[in-house]
Amino acid sequence: MNDGLKLVIIGGVAGGATAAARARRLSETSEITIIEKGPYVSFANCGLPYHISGVIPQRNSLLVQTPESLKSRFNIDVRINTEAIAINREKHTVTIKDLKSGIESDLAYDRIILSPGSLAFKPPIPGIDLPQIFTLQTIPDLDAIMKWISEKKVRRAAVIGGGFIGVEAAENLKERGIAVSIIEADKQVMPPIDPEMAELIHQHLRVMGVELFLEKKVKAIVEKNGALSIATEDGTSIETDMAILAIGVRPRSELAKKAGLETGPMGGITVNDRLQTSDPDIYAVGDAIEIHNPLSGLPGYIPLAGPANRQGRIAADQVFGRDSRYRGTMGTSICKIFSLSAGAVGVSEKYLKRMNMSYKKTIIHAGNHANYYPGSEPIALKLLFTPDKGAILGAQAIGTEGVDKRIDVIAAAAAGGLTVFDLEHLELSYAPPYSSAKDPVNMAGFTAANMIRGDHIVIHAEDIPGIDPAAALLLDVRTAGEYKRGNIPGSINIPVNELRPRMKELDKEKKIIIYCQVGLRGYVAQRMLTLSGFDAVNLSGGYKTWCMVNRLPV
Amino acid sequence: MNDGLKLVIIGGVAGGATAAARARRLSETSEITIIEKGPYVSFANCGLPYHISGVIPQRNSLLVQTPESLKSRFNIDVRINTEAIAINREKHTVTIKDLKSGIESDLAYDRIILSPGSLAFKPPIPGIDLPQIFTLQTIPDLDAIMKWISEKKVRRAAVIGGGFIGVEAAENLKERGIAVSIIEADKQVMPPIDPEMAELIHQHLRVMGVELFLEKKVKAIVEKNGALSIATEDGTSIETDMAILAIGVRPRSELAKKAGLETGPMGGITVNDRLQTSDPDIYAVGDAIEIHNPLSGLPGYIPLAGPANRQGRIAADQVFGRDSRYRGTMGTSICKIFSLSAGAVGVSEKYLKRMNMSYKKTIIHAGNHANYYPGSEPIALKLLFTPDKGAILGAQAIGTEGVDKRIDVIAAAAAGGLTVFDLEHLELSYAPPYSSAKDPVNMAGFTAANMIRGDHIVIHAEDIPGIDPAAALLLDVRTAGEYKRGNIPGSINIPVNELRPRMKELDKEKKIIIYCQVGLRGYVAQRMLTLSGFDAVNLSGGYKTWCMVNRLPV
Repeated sequence: MNDGLKLVIIGGVAGGATAAARARRLSETSEITIIEKGPYVSFANCGLPYHISGVIPQRNSLLVQTPESLKSRFNIDVRINTEAIAINREKHTVTIKDLKSGIESDLAYDRIILSPGSLAFKPPIPGIDLPQIFTLQTIPDLDAIMKWISEKKVRRAAVIGGGFIGVEAAENLKERGIAVSIIEADKQVMPPIDPEMAELIHQHLRVMGVELFLEKKVKAIVEKNGALSIATEDGTSIETDMAILAIGVRPRSELAKKAGLETGPMGGITVNDRLQTSDPDIYAVGDAIEIHNPLSGLPGYIPLAGPANRQGRIAADQVFGRDSRYRGTMGTSICKIFSLSAGAVGVSEKYLKRMNMSYKKTIIHAGNHANYYPGSEPIALKLLFTPDKGAILGAQAIGTEGVDKRIDVIAAAAAGGLTVFDLEHLELSYAPPYSSAKDPVNMAGFTAANMIRGDHIVIHAEDIPGIDPAAALLLDVRTAGEYKRGNIPGSINIPVNELRPRMKELDKEKKIIIYCQVGLRGYVAQRMLTLSGFDAVNLSGGYKTWCMVNRLPV
Repeated sequence: MNDGLKLVIIGGVAGGATAAARARRLSETSEITIIEKGPYVSFANCGLPYHISGVIPQRNSLLVQTPESLKSRFNIDVRINTEAIAINREKHTVTIKDLKSGIESDLAYDRIILSPGSLAFKPPIPGIDLPQIFTLQTIPDLDAIMKWISEKKVRRAAVIGGGFIGVEAAENLKERGIAVSIIEADKQVMPPIDPEMAELIHQHLRVMGVELFLEKKVKAIVEKNGALSIATEDGTSIETDMAILAIGVRPRSELAKKAGLETGPMGGITVNDRLQTSDPDIYAVGDAIEIHNPLSGLPGYIPLAGPANRQGRIAADQVFGRDSRYRGTMGTSICKIFSLSAGAVGVSEKYLKRMNMSYKKTIIHAGNHANYYPGSEPIALKLLFTPDKGAILGAQAIGTEGVDKRIDVIAAAAAGGLTVFDLEHLELSYAPPYSSAKDPVNMAGFTAANMIRGDHIVIHAEDIPGIDPAAALLLDVRTAGEYKRGNIPGSINIPVNELRPRMKELDKEKKIIIYCQVGLRGYVAQRMLTLSGFDAVNLSGGYKTWCMVNRLPV
C-alpha cells in the first residue's frame, strides 16, 4: 500500500529514525529521506550524561546509526547538516538548506513526518550566553562540555535545573571528580515526583556530596576571571567554573507553525490519535508534539524517548495505510541518581491539586525483596487513585533496587485499566532474592483498597498540624527503642504488641492518631481500636513519611 | 460481621498465618486458633535453601512469626506440634492430637480454613528412606541437612529433581563448597520452562560446576560405607555423600478426603472462587488446593507462596462476610540459579502441545538495558499467544538482570487482559541503566503482533530439519565474521547491509530461510525479500535460538 511514495522525515533522532526504519520495512519502493539539522542521526541522547563521567567510555557507542548504515540497511537518504526551513503545503515541497554550503533547494513530498524534537529552554537572564554555560541535548553539546572540562581543568560545576537531565548531569560530573551544585528555582528536584518523595532524593544528593540550592531562582550570571558567579534572587551567590543549563525543554514547533499547522496551549504541535497534524499529509511525533495522558484524561507535554520511538513507528504505519493509533503518554519514567532510582507514572499529587481533581493517596515503604534475604533495600511507593473506583492516577517510587520494576508493573496494570482492587490480586513473581510473597505493588493495592473500603482509616502527615491537640491523642505503637530514637512531638508510646491489654489507658472521647514506622503496625492497631469502638486513624506511611514531609532525615 | 465466631485454621505457614492475621483485622471478638503439626509457624519456607550456603546466615531470620508474637499482636491461639486428625462436620468439631503427649481432644469450630500445604513426593524406590536422603520443606528438614553436612563433613551431594527447590538446593550446596550433581528424569530442569529455554540453565549450571544428569531416572539407592550410590535406569551410578529429594510435591489432602470433602484429578482439594470446599463452612488455601489458571482457562495444581498468601487473605475475608473472590493462579514464578534468573508466567509450549491448544510463539533476545550503557546483559524472552487475537498464554524469560521485571510486567498485562498488540504500546520506564526505548517486552509484542499481522513470516528452529534442502536456501544475513564463527550447516552468507544490491543472487523459485544472530536483522531482510517478491521466512530468535534448540553452546 502506498508504494512508491515520497516520505520526508524532518529530524533523525529517536522518533524520526524509528519512523524511517519502520517505513522501509513496510515499503521497498518508497523514497525515504531524513532531513537532520545536526551532524548526527539516531544518536543515544539519553546516554549523553554518562559519557561525561566515563561510565560510557566510548563516544562512538552513542552513535546508534550513521547515514551510511541507514543507507545500506534501509536504503534511506539521510541528509545531515541540513535544515528544513519551510513546508510548502500547496506545492507539497519542503525547502531545505544545506547548512555548510548555504544552498537552498526544494524537496517534493507525498507525506511528511515531523520529528524536530525539543530545544533546551534558555531563560532571558543576563549572562545566559556566556561561553561557560552549556546545554546537554546533542553530541555537539556533549563534545563542547567534554572539551571545556578537560581544557579548562574544570573543578567546579553548577547545574541549573534539577530535572532528569540536570540530576543525571550532576551525578556524572560528580563521578568525574568535579564539585557539583544543583540550583533549582522550585522547592524540589525531579518535577514528576511529589515534594515529600523528592526529599529522599535531596537527602541522597547531599550524602553523595552534591550541593543543593533549592528555591533559588537564578537572576544573573557574570564572568569573573574565567569562572562564573551565579546570583540568585534571594541574594545567594554561587561561584563555579562552568554551568549546565537544564531548566527544561520546549517543543520545536516553529517550522510547523510557519506552515500553518495547529499547535496547542503548551506550544507543541497538535496531532490526532493517528499522529496526524491539522494537515492530513503531515504527521508529527516526539518531543515536538502535545499528547493526551490516558491516566489523567488531560492533554500534556511529555517529552520522553520511549513514546517518541513508538510514535515514530505509528506515524510510519499510518503513512503506509496501517491503522495504528497512539494511545497517549502516561509519562512512565525512571531516573538514576547515584545509587537511588526514582520512577514515576501518570500524574503527581501536586498536578491533581492544581487541576482540582479528586483523588486519594497512599505511601508505603517495603523492601525490594524478602527482608530475611540479604541486601533488602526499602522502596518508598506512592500511589494516587480515584476516591471511589480506585482507578490508577499515578505512582511514584524511590529506592535503590527494584524501583523500575514496580513502576513498570503499575504502568502495565494501568494500561489494562486495572484498579487498586486489582493490584491486590496481581500475581507477581516471587522468590526471596526478587520480591516478597506480597510484593510492594500488592501492598500498595492492599492499603489503597482498604482505604476505599473504609477498613483502613488514614490521616496524612501534612494534616497532623491541623488537628486540635486537646481533642486528639498521638499514639506511637512502635517499640520503646524506636520511640526513643525519634518520635512525633506530643505522642505517647504503647507498642502494638501491648495495645490490646492496655487499650483501657486510652480516652474514648479523643481521636486516636496512631503511627508506627511505615504504617503496617499502625494499621493493625487502627483495626484493633476501630473494632473496639475508638475513633482511630492511622498515619499513612508512618513516621518515615512524616519525616519526609517535614524534611527530616530518614 | 460474623463477630464472635470460632475460626480454626489448620496449618500455620504461608496461607494459614496470612488468613489468621487478616481474620483478626476483621474481627476483634472471634476466637482464632491455628493448629500446626510442625514445631514452627509462619516460617520462610522459600528461604530455606539459602541457609545451607550461609547466604542467609541466621536460622532465626527464617522464623517470621512465633506463637508468642501471633498471640501478642493478633490474639491468635497457636498450637504447634498439634495435628488435626479428623474434621467432624456434623458436630462442627476438629479432633486434634498433641504430638508430644499423644492426647486427643475436640475443638469446636464455626468455620475452618484448611492450609495444610504439600508433602515432598517420595517415589517408591529401594533405599529412598536411607538416613542420607533428605527433603527440604520445613525448618526441621533444614536442621537435619545442616547437621548432617557438618557432622559428616559432606563433600559431595546429589539433588534428585531439577525443579525450583532442586535447583536452589544445588546452588546453595555448591556455594557451601560441596560438589553437587543434579539427577533429573526429564530431559530438562525447571518444568515450567520449555526445553530450549532450559538449555540456557543447563549450560549455566555446568559452567558453575554442577554436574547435570538429565534423562536419568533413579532406580535404586544403596548405602556404601556411609555414602550413597544412586543407580539410574540407564545403568549410570552416581556416588555421593548425601541426597536431597526434590522431585516435586503433592497436596496434603488426606484430612479433607477423610472428612468427605471433594478433591480434584490432581489430588488437591476442590474449591470454588470463594475458596470454599464442598462444605460451605470449610475453606481451603495454599499448596493443598487445585486452582484455575486464567491464562489457559484450565484447572491446575500450582503450589506457590504468593498465591497461598493471597488465598489466605481471601478465605479470611469470606469467613467474615467480605465477598473477595480468587481469580486463579497464572503461575508467575522466578528462580535464581547462580547468576541466572529464570522466570515464567502462564503455561508453557509443551503444556499447550499436550493439551492440543493452538498457539503461536516468539523468542526474542534483547539486552536488559541500553546496549551502550555498560553491563547490558541478554535476556531470552519467549512469548506464547493465541494465533488470532494474540491473547497472552504464557511467557518465559532467562537472563542475569531484569528477568523478574519482564515477567511481572507481562503478568500484569495478562491480568488486565492485554494482548500482544497491547504489549507493542506498553509505556515502560526508560533510562539507559534500566531498559531501552523499546523494552524487551515491547520487542516481544512487536514480533508477536507482526507475526499475526502476517508481516513477520517466521520458521522455528525445530522445523528446519523438515525442509527439503532442494527447495529452500538457508541465508545467513549476519556479518562475514559472525558467519565464520559458527553457522547453520548448508547456509550461505549475505550480510543484511549488502542484501538489497545482491538480491539477484537469490533463486526466486526457492524458499529463502533467513537467519541472523537473534532475529532482528533477519526480520529486516525478510521484509526486504518478501516485498521484493521472494518466498522468504525468518528464523524466529535467530542463530542463538537454533543453538538452544540443538543444545549447542550459546
